[in-house]
Amino acid sequence: MTMFMDVHHGMAGITAEQLKAAHEADLAVQDREGVEFRQAWADPESGTVYCLSSAPSKEAVQRVHERTGHPADEVHPVPLQV
Amino acid sequence: MTMFMDVHHGMAGITAEQLKAAHEADLAVQDREGVEFRQAWADPESGTVYCLSSAPSKEAVQRVHERTGHPADEVHPVPLQV
Repeated sequence: MTMFMDVHHGMAGITAEQLKAAHEADLAVQDREGVEFRQAWADPESGTVYCLSSAPSKEAVQRVHERTGHPADEVHPVPLQV
Repeated sequence: MTMFMDVHHGMAGITAEQLKAAHEADLAVQDREGVEFRQAWADPESGTVYCLSSAPSKEAVQRVHERTGHPADEVHPVPLQV
């Protein structure tokens, strides 16, 4: 399993409730792809959302996000962490 | 204190040792700006580094990174987290 950081743009005005709902939708379907979403952070002003996950591939991360209606604009493996 | 996610581009080929050294340099000088760097993640292939911190302002985050020789390309407040 590799760690991934994915980024969503265009989410200006996102609320805490919307972020929570999107995250919970991902959690509800992630098992079938072997993905584990860990944390997510949002900047409502610039409309940027970052999601940290562990997953077998970037395609698996994207499939979860697509299934829940919010595909990521970028998915980066982040094998290095401190 | 607000949480911030900052992003560095152009770091292709970064190693685990370089990420650790950069993070430790930030930790060594962060107190004077009231910043607390929490975690950092790197994608050596695309050359992207993400740093999560709590700080009084985005300018404070950037001053720490400038002082240690690696200014961020983007600094986003991320007041929403799950």
